[in-house]
Amino acid sequence: MSGVTEVPDVPEPPAYRDGAIDLLGVIGYGALTAFGRLAEDAQLAPTLADRVQVSALAARQFGHFTAVRDRLVELGADPMTAMEPFHAPFDAFHAHTAPKTWLEGLIKAYVGDGFAADFYREVAAFVDPQTRELVIAVLADDGFEAYVVDRVCTAIGAQPDIAGRLALWARRLVGEALSQAQRVAAERDAMTSLLTGTVDRPGVDLAAAGRMFTRLVENHTQRMGRLGLQA
Amino acid sequence: MSGVTEVPDVPEPPAYRDGAIDLLGVIGYGALTAFGRLAEDAQLAPTLADRVQVSALAARQFGHFTAVRDRLVELGADPMTAMEPFHAPFDAFHAHTAPKTWLEGLIKAYVGDGFAADFYREVAAFVDPQTRELVIAVLADDGFEAYVVDRVCTAIGAQPDIAGRLALWARRLVGEALSQAQRVAAERDAMTSLLTGTVDRPGVDLAAAGRMFTRLVENHTQRMGRLGLQA
Repeated sequence: MSGVTEVPDVPEPPAYRDGAIDLLGVIGYGALTAFGRLAEDAQLAPTLADRVQVSALAARQFGHFTAVRDRLVELGADPMTAMEPFHAPFDAFHAHTAPKTWLEGLIKAYVGDGFAADFYREVAAFVDPQTRELVIAVLADDGFEAYVVDRVCTAIGAQPDIAGRLALWARRLVGEALSQAQRVAAERDAMTSLLTGTVDRPGVDLAAAGRMFTRLVENHTQRMGRLGLQA
Repeated sequence: MSGVTEVPDVPEPPAYRDGAIDLLGVIGYGALTAFGRLAEDAQLAPTLADRVQVSALAARQFGHFTAVRDRLVELGADPMTAMEPFHAPFDAFHAHTAPKTWLEGLIKAYVGDGFAADFYREVAAFVDPQTRELVIAVLADDGFEAYVVDRVCTAIGAQPDIAGRLALWARRLVGEALSQAQRVAAERDAMTSLLTGTVDRPGVDLAAAGRMFTRLVENHTQRMGRLGLQA
């Protein structure tokens, strides 16, 4: 337990650590709201088997929350305080994108959370290795994709005219997510500076930022394609 | 893997096994509905810390559900079919006892689920040892009690005039629970015969049934006492 360095797991310098805390804060609050939302969606499930499946997803999100919370505590941060800046944007996002049907809820969980997860993974490249590994493990798919793709494709197969409306819905989700992300970026210097860099540490240049945005859009287009929807 | 008996973990005779499946079915569906209800209650929490605490309770209920489901599969039963007979009574119970406030939700989780858990533990004395151990592990308290007692007592301390209304609420919960339990008992011979016995196997006599009922009432009175409420 004693060693050369005193706090080997805590990243330095402070600005860098603050970025990790912000990233964990946003993922933690995202997981907590995903838990509540999926648990609510589960109650709208057409069958008990679907209810069990979506409840399992909700419970898993709570597991992600606890993993992130424990890492925040390891970093010496208060988890409630770390999540606080993200209440307003997340709550606004969910208020603007309340699913009206079971299928809309599934698409929101897959397309919306998928887009957010891709972004968090990009940011995770700039934090300490231990936090990065945790973030990547937490955001791993866990077989959710296969379930949603199957359910959505079956529904569209049975009723092809719903595809257009569902594609519009997915586009609205991403638009809302980007709008809230912009708000976060404007307010959270610590997280933004992970990407943009600081006086002490280089960030990504404009070309790299462009490639990152391209990756995000490509992944989103692939998800839409798997659902049989036009991005 | 090969041995003297072919299916060592499956209780015999069939009537006995049917009782175990009924018990697991009722506990499984109870846990699944408790998950949904607690996840919903969590959204009404006055603070984020309370929301996390009640969300953790919900996630734990889902863990209980999966433990029960796995045991049903081990016994060769279909979990969805095993839970089916309990949809109507549970859904009716929850429809009749939707909490109007955060405190009512906490009391429902503690007093209502506590009463049900005591009853399941009594029935578990009559099933195979492996199912019994699982049931007892699943119904263990896990520190929930301390949290609810603290929150309710603090609220009553701050506003003593709510105690009377909350005591009435708790009595209504138990009345509704007994009414639904009676309905289950009338319809589910397999579970009822665990207690009453069959031609092949003795059940509890009238004196033992009386003692069981006394234990249930005593435990309930103790829970109410801990909350500072009159039973």
